[in-house]
Amino acid sequence: MAAQGVTKRIEDYSRWYTDVVKMADLADYAAVRGCMIIKPYGYELWENIKSGLDKRFKATGHRNAYFPLLIPMSFIEKEAKHVEGFAPELAIVTHAGGKELDEPLAIRPTSETVIGHAYARWIHSYRDLPVLINQWANVVRWEMRPRLFLRTSEFLWQEGHTAHATEEEAEEETIRMLDIYADFAVKDAAIPVIKGEKSGQEKFAGASRSFTIEAMMGNTWALQSGTSHYLGQNFARAFDIKFLDEENKLKYCYTTSWGVSTRMVGGIVMAHGDDKGLRLPPRLAPIQVVIVPIWRTVDQQGVVMKAIDDIRGALVDAGVRVHVDKREGITPGFKFNDWEMRGVPMRMEIGPRDVEHGTAILARRDMQGKDAKQSVSQDGIAQRVLELLTDIQNHMLAQATEFRDAHLHRANSYDELKEIVTDGWALIPHCGASECEEKIKEETKSSSRCYPIAENKDWDPREKTCPICGKPAVGLAYFARSY
Amino acid sequence: MAAQGVTKRIEDYSRWYTDVVKMADLADYAAVRGCMIIKPYGYELWENIKSGLDKRFKATGHRNAYFPLLIPMSFIEKEAKHVEGFAPELAIVTHAGGKELDEPLAIRPTSETVIGHAYARWIHSYRDLPVLINQWANVVRWEMRPRLFLRTSEFLWQEGHTAHATEEEAEEETIRMLDIYADFAVKDAAIPVIKGEKSGQEKFAGASRSFTIEAMMGNTWALQSGTSHYLGQNFARAFDIKFLDEENKLKYCYTTSWGVSTRMVGGIVMAHGDDKGLRLPPRLAPIQVVIVPIWRTVDQQGVVMKAIDDIRGALVDAGVRVHVDKREGITPGFKFNDWEMRGVPMRMEIGPRDVEHGTAILARRDMQGKDAKQSVSQDGIAQRVLELLTDIQNHMLAQATEFRDAHLHRANSYDELKEIVTDGWALIPHCGASECEEKIKEETKSSSRCYPIAENKDWDPREKTCPICGKPAVGLAYFARSY
Repeated sequence: MAAQGVTKRIEDYSRWYTDVVKMADLADYAAVRGCMIIKPYGYELWENIKSGLDKRFKATGHRNAYFPLLIPMSFIEKEAKHVEGFAPELAIVTHAGGKELDEPLAIRPTSETVIGHAYARWIHSYRDLPVLINQWANVVRWEMRPRLFLRTSEFLWQEGHTAHATEEEAEEETIRMLDIYADFAVKDAAIPVIKGEKSGQEKFAGASRSFTIEAMMGNTWALQSGTSHYLGQNFARAFDIKFLDEENKLKYCYTTSWGVSTRMVGGIVMAHGDDKGLRLPPRLAPIQVVIVPIWRTVDQQGVVMKAIDDIRGALVDAGVRVHVDKREGITPGFKFNDWEMRGVPMRMEIGPRDVEHGTAILARRDMQGKDAKQSVSQDGIAQRVLELLTDIQNHMLAQATEFRDAHLHRANSYDELKEIVTDGWALIPHCGASECEEKIKEETKSSSRCYPIAENKDWDPREKTCPICGKPAVGLAYFARSY
Repeated sequence: MAAQGVTKRIEDYSRWYTDVVKMADLADYAAVRGCMIIKPYGYELWENIKSGLDKRFKATGHRNAYFPLLIPMSFIEKEAKHVEGFAPELAIVTHAGGKELDEPLAIRPTSETVIGHAYARWIHSYRDLPVLINQWANVVRWEMRPRLFLRTSEFLWQEGHTAHATEEEAEEETIRMLDIYADFAVKDAAIPVIKGEKSGQEKFAGASRSFTIEAMMGNTWALQSGTSHYLGQNFARAFDIKFLDEENKLKYCYTTSWGVSTRMVGGIVMAHGDDKGLRLPPRLAPIQVVIVPIWRTVDQQGVVMKAIDDIRGALVDAGVRVHVDKREGITPGFKFNDWEMRGVPMRMEIGPRDVEHGTAILARRDMQGKDAKQSVSQDGIAQRVLELLTDIQNHMLAQATEFRDAHLHRANSYDELKEIVTDGWALIPHCGASECEEKIKEETKSSSRCYPIAENKDWDPREKTCPICGKPAVGLAYFARSY
């Protein structure tokens, strides 16, 4: 029925993804290789993600600010691990205002350095601490194998940067923000992420410890969906971020940084999408309810549109994001498929008979077949829609959780790991050595995702050994194919 | 009393401006010359400006999207006037991902070219029109004489880009957005702008016609505060943006673009500030009411803070942005000066005697002396605060309008113009020739601000001649010193 269908996931998951992103009008390729255009429907989804995160940041005392796009190369070189990690991905401005610059400038790949430089000037005393700042910005990391939303040379994100008087407080902040990311992912994006610590190999360039929320995509691959870094005094020493403590002693601050990017959009596509296309969780969907009018004659059109106007008004008043598909010359069936492909959580159909009976048909995107449709009374319809949207949100989380849990396995040997990672994540005792990680990656294409916090609680690593090298394990780690 | 006072405006207006921006914590200089850091208080002001504009854009059918930061140099070169205007200000990326690029990339100075390239791919038929898209983004225009907010090498802005089937519709859109900018400036920023058309000399590089809102600063200089451009088919031809019309004929689109930037923050500082510092209009102020507790003993502190908690709650419930200044070891007098300098529209003082009487003192930032203060009952205080905030907003607009109107003059000769522009704006018949504009600029330092729409209505230019060259005038133009 649909004019264009998306590729089936089982045929080619990668092509399915690109089909959905393009056909649902989320994004388009840009002229510059590796860059993307975020189209209005995709950007509205991003705006809802932003707003869900931003209110959580503000509720925990963070304030937004804006730091420069351009960073002197000498700043990036100040932290040894940082420059090592980011140098290969930098885009460099060498000329500006018609002249060659004395010092080349990097387009920010992340802003620890330029913000560290500012904090060193702003922070003098313990009274100035903590500094809790976030910025919404674009960053550039040159990408050799770009994928829309998942890996693009330019992407949008937020980056929080905080400075604290004590190690303990900075570590608490790191975990607080990890928890906020998980709360957002679970409650707003309906994605049941796993919180954990990155291995030494996978941590952020310049961090002491990196934490992550890892999400499972529809092909069981993992997507790192947000990270929170405890930077210790690494950047404080590199940028001289010092304060006088209560005893008048000069000390280095402890800093953190944490970020979520437009990659999250790709995560939502792959965590929830099906062979019909996108499925958006109601809390983030740009359009929560689409109303499709059904009529044959002009008289019927008038009657139907009048009823729809009233319902639309009631939904808007109830805070529902609603769209009426008034397009003419297109069949209702085409519209149904179109909006299903675009992932709108609920469709409302209203025809002359519905008007007569004072009813409307509601169809849920999260279910299939007869169960997905119900006829409801127009009386109190806004309340019913709100209830159903909550139900859809919860059901999508339950579906994603069920899928994830069915693909998480404990591996008792390296052979088991090899088997598991072809269609899931393997939890395995790990020695922490990057040699073992590398070996697993080479031989299985799966990488260390994290040491999950929950699974490592109350667990004595001395009980187990790494199945690769036989040495004592430092923790249980998830290995999986990943984006 | 204040720890630091700002320079008096009459002593050095330029230093007064920088003092206010720095001391009120709106912004700081960045390491890269010409760039700035927007600090949290300044960014919150910008967030409120964004939200005031964004809701107006959405209410008129515009949708947000995001286009790439990096633009191939060949794109910028496609429109002859455009490249001529922007080439000298470009920042150029020559290396990325560790290699020299085949084609250098410009950091966007504005996005007509990269968006035009996308529209050419997206628009096929009259059914695809109009396209009404806006983007919130950073842009870079290399600046030789930077000033915080007013001229910075990187700035934040929104840029709307629309495509239409007819000239008429595109012209309507141009004026619609000009009107939206003026509505925002007047109602939200309390700045009584003058709407007008830019001269041929001053119009946007690549535009057919440019419109502007011009605001008067506290030193009577003009600030171009928002522009709306009718681009005709200039960019459509350069980028091949074509559509099939209803008769199946292939035609070029008509396009528009329009923008407001962080420059608006500088405009608010200079339109409203006084010798005590910043004065923010309530609708945009990050903090609308600051509550200063007054107490001597710990017992008093408890009683006062309890009353403040209740009032704060009532204000938050009423949607008021309120802050309680709980800092200890600082006198109330210091706090008063501090918040006056930061431009908070209303201060509430509460001491033990106020608690006893069930009252609070309200002090308005927009008035001086005894009139500025009043004692109000704590009963229904939120309602009273809302009324007063509206009153302050209206009063600030009235003050700015009175000031502006006192400095707008009709010049009947070139000599009068010379005199007027030392302390105001001169309205003068103008021939439209850039030679005459240049002569005036050289000799008086004043430039053509605009042909004001209101003053040129129902006016027959043939009645008048240009006082510089004696040729027939094409319209009445404002000349003024400007930023």
